[in-house]
Amino acid sequence: MRGDAPLSMRNITRGEVKNASLSQLKALSDELREEIFRTVSECGGHLASNLGTVELTVALHRVFDFPQDKLIFDVGHQCYTHKLLSGRAELFRTLRKEGGISGFPKREESAYDCYDTGHAGTAISAAIGLAKARDLKGEKYEVIALVGDGSFQNGLVYEALNSLRTLNTHILVILNDNGMSISPTEGGMHDLLKEIRGGASDDAALFTRFGLSYMGAVNGNDLSALLPALEEAKGRLKEESVLLHVSTRKGQGYPFSENAPTETHGLSPHPAHREYAQALGEELSRMAEEDERIVAVTAAMTDSLGLRPFFEKFPSRAFDVGICEEHACVLSASLAAGGMKPYYAIYSTFLQRAYDEVIHDVAGQNLPVTFCIDRAGIVGADGETHQGVFDLSYLSPIPNLAVAIPRNIAQFRAMLRMSAGYGGPLSIRYPKEGEEGETSPVEMGKFEVLHSSMSDITVLAAGERCIGLAQKLLARAEQKGFSFTLVNACFLKPLDTELLLSLSGKYVVTIEDNVAIGGLGDAVRRFYGDSKKVLSFGLRDAFIPHGEVRSLAQKYGLDADEIFAAIEECHARG
Amino acid sequence: MRGDAPLSMRNITRGEVKNASLSQLKALSDELREEIFRTVSECGGHLASNLGTVELTVALHRVFDFPQDKLIFDVGHQCYTHKLLSGRAELFRTLRKEGGISGFPKREESAYDCYDTGHAGTAISAAIGLAKARDLKGEKYEVIALVGDGSFQNGLVYEALNSLRTLNTHILVILNDNGMSISPTEGGMHDLLKEIRGGASDDAALFTRFGLSYMGAVNGNDLSALLPALEEAKGRLKEESVLLHVSTRKGQGYPFSENAPTETHGLSPHPAHREYAQALGEELSRMAEEDERIVAVTAAMTDSLGLRPFFEKFPSRAFDVGICEEHACVLSASLAAGGMKPYYAIYSTFLQRAYDEVIHDVAGQNLPVTFCIDRAGIVGADGETHQGVFDLSYLSPIPNLAVAIPRNIAQFRAMLRMSAGYGGPLSIRYPKEGEEGETSPVEMGKFEVLHSSMSDITVLAAGERCIGLAQKLLARAEQKGFSFTLVNACFLKPLDTELLLSLSGKYVVTIEDNVAIGGLGDAVRRFYGDSKKVLSFGLRDAFIPHGEVRSLAQKYGLDADEIFAAIEECHARG
Repeated sequence: MRGDAPLSMRNITRGEVKNASLSQLKALSDELREEIFRTVSECGGHLASNLGTVELTVALHRVFDFPQDKLIFDVGHQCYTHKLLSGRAELFRTLRKEGGISGFPKREESAYDCYDTGHAGTAISAAIGLAKARDLKGEKYEVIALVGDGSFQNGLVYEALNSLRTLNTHILVILNDNGMSISPTEGGMHDLLKEIRGGASDDAALFTRFGLSYMGAVNGNDLSALLPALEEAKGRLKEESVLLHVSTRKGQGYPFSENAPTETHGLSPHPAHREYAQALGEELSRMAEEDERIVAVTAAMTDSLGLRPFFEKFPSRAFDVGICEEHACVLSASLAAGGMKPYYAIYSTFLQRAYDEVIHDVAGQNLPVTFCIDRAGIVGADGETHQGVFDLSYLSPIPNLAVAIPRNIAQFRAMLRMSAGYGGPLSIRYPKEGEEGETSPVEMGKFEVLHSSMSDITVLAAGERCIGLAQKLLARAEQKGFSFTLVNACFLKPLDTELLLSLSGKYVVTIEDNVAIGGLGDAVRRFYGDSKKVLSFGLRDAFIPHGEVRSLAQKYGLDADEIFAAIEECHARG
Repeated sequence: MRGDAPLSMRNITRGEVKNASLSQLKALSDELREEIFRTVSECGGHLASNLGTVELTVALHRVFDFPQDKLIFDVGHQCYTHKLLSGRAELFRTLRKEGGISGFPKREESAYDCYDTGHAGTAISAAIGLAKARDLKGEKYEVIALVGDGSFQNGLVYEALNSLRTLNTHILVILNDNGMSISPTEGGMHDLLKEIRGGASDDAALFTRFGLSYMGAVNGNDLSALLPALEEAKGRLKEESVLLHVSTRKGQGYPFSENAPTETHGLSPHPAHREYAQALGEELSRMAEEDERIVAVTAAMTDSLGLRPFFEKFPSRAFDVGICEEHACVLSASLAAGGMKPYYAIYSTFLQRAYDEVIHDVAGQNLPVTFCIDRAGIVGADGETHQGVFDLSYLSPIPNLAVAIPRNIAQFRAMLRMSAGYGGPLSIRYPKEGEEGETSPVEMGKFEVLHSSMSDITVLAAGERCIGLAQKLLARAEQKGFSFTLVNACFLKPLDTELLLSLSGKYVVTIEDNVAIGGLGDAVRRFYGDSKKVLSFGLRDAFIPHGEVRSLAQKYGLDADEIFAAIEECHARG
């Protein structure tokens, strides 16, 4: 014990956290906040949400006994303080770097991370499951779900709350209410929380109904308020489940972040020069001027998807429904059924949440919804839960749904313009960053020949990264005195069977930034049967951790040398 | 106008419905009820829910103007009265028969069906979308979502409610409260509705928060109560959105159905002799006696999945969370993270709802959850929204997840027993009905050779129906003087690469009861590259309507003659 001497996250012990004075904990919080700021500035990552939850996490470490007690972070991007306080301070500067600390909780990383998260709304369900397992095994520990108010819009939270009394176990839900998801939170639940926070305790009866004893709202950036509240909540857990409503300030302690929480939600160390998202906002706004049917739908991602200009220009035709990917999808389908032309923009990984609705509501009714699927392929620093590497596989088997893959931003714009006149469901998938480039006119289901040769080999590549890779391979081949035909496979569905039939060579090589199972390679091989030798390159059958995009691509199945060797062998065999 | 003379659904006009007397409407209701009972007895279908909503639907047709006004049925299985009153009475005896009337709303069938449903929880989202499209286009009509209380547990309903005020449009939500989904409804929302129904109007403030003016509860089987309530609701719609709480009795009018609503929820005209579901209940109960870690999870389908015996024997280890497929999946994942061994039983088509959670929570953490996927393949009479024909495709690309396909009930039992000792995520997919049969011991990732021959041809078939088809093809081949090797491809993942490598013949034919895109055929072709000629047979890239299982299979890609011709051609070529 070091009395009232400063404690540092670098060497603090569990006993010291448990016995620290208020002033020591405050000083520790300042140190943590500074470290988070410095590291995120360097490595990128989630800034505002982590600055907002420093005191709350310190208080949790003071009151509860981790890792015996279990702390589940909803979405998970607010776990930095927890990581710093659980033996990972020395490694923290490797945050989000390949081989380094993940930006999300990871069971494989530490016993203090009890449940992996990344997508919104899972924490209460997960807390109930862990608590129920504890009860059944006769073990004794507390389970805490830390959930932002943004996630409280997600249907999964409600499904979990609905079953809490039936499942009859005790958990602590901490509602971290900062009035924001990535963008400001909107909707009925937000208004309800605001009134409760303002003292309308009647409204808190909703939580009681669901079997949660309500406590709050407590200032979540004030340790002297938090510590007794958490102690009381811990006591109540013996008898009942508790919802502790905590009010925090996103970006707390850094005025520029407090004032711009959306802009400082996630920081990237190397800002991109061009983003597909920006093109989406520009094109869609332009198209909407001419076509009154065009509407835009998003699930709490207006800015990151580039839709801000559209929202500002056409507020009555722009719908942000909160973190509700499923509802956003049905809303798009029904807007289309009502005669509108909806564009539902979403990250590839989050579209998984609306998979049933894509099938059942959009494709099943053959409605003209266009899915603008951002962050497709390997995303890099966010890791496993954010990789957009399954979409080509899960979209391909859906009847009626076309799947387009632009090779640069100009082609993405052309596809958007084409979509305006297309009468069925269409998905366009693209990475975050790219080059503007140029494009020939886009026609539904038609590939684009980028380089013709008399060679026996054709390379079909899909998407900007794979086209880029293929172009490098072509240059390398030409240096070695041979060539191949390079085709931009810009539609996975419908496949350009006419072009495929016209290829005279013996070999076809496919390259895609998606798991190899169920993607372009399989489609091309299925089409040719044994009439051509098809070599397909895609990502390995594995969850891909965080790291640098190119390096991960190389490690996980898109290795330039390996693909070149395969092409060279085809050439040698002739 | 026929004064107070009886009106019949067979020739009733819209004008007559609008002007009928109460006694005429009552007589009409009786006629409708009788027709529904008679038709369902003959054709199968959803009985109890349709008997319960006769008066409500008659009253809606009286008060609103269809098809100008739009009526969306949540889940959709309670639409029979609506179909009878909208020009489909003469066709009604073709209900659920191939080429006949669908058991669900279908836009293609009638202008009175404005939005296709089949899965729970979509109607409020869809109503908001249609109403918003109406507003944007400056049109005038009312949009009504008819939603059962079972669906009110589903997260999607809550996501839609949450956005109602933000989206700022007017809809009528009719909460059809019969205290049941397929099984009795459970959970916090159920208790809340019960108290509201009992007069605790304070609790109705929840709906007000979400921007719905609350009315109710009205006796939904009493036309004299319903008609003025609907008129009032219609009036209020000019100013605001309305939730009309209606209390109905499932099975109303048929005491045996009122008393056994679960058993008479859905009727099948030809009861099966053996069901996989029964084997699930038996085996899981047996296994759970020896293994205390085993728990069962379901989303409101305890009976149809065969879990009743397990629930009765192990009530503390059995979890029905209501129509919450996503929550059930995260609950399973977290129970596994807490050291339990969960079995999550679900229909193939409904697992689409939990797709993200299968990836993110179960497979992403490599947790030992076993998915028992019932109603896989073509399901027949329920049609498009219930076909289980995508699961092999959407499960294959998920890392860590094993995919097993038993060829009979005995093998399903063996797979379940094997699963007890398996430490990772596993899915087992099977149809509703089958033969008990026999099985050799099951080993993870190992195919089963059912018939060896010296032929150049191997047929790989997956699942009971396709094995049955392949065996008939084999008998036919032997009659014609040749043979082939028949292999039960009982694991799609991991593939039995050892066996595949050992095959010496030139031809491999795959047969699967799943869309051809992304299933077994693609996996086998990917494995062989061009080292064998692979012919794959699966279902066509289309939504498959209702009909008879075998006939649909034949029409949609599994035609015995066509497959035999292909095998014969391989044989002839040698």
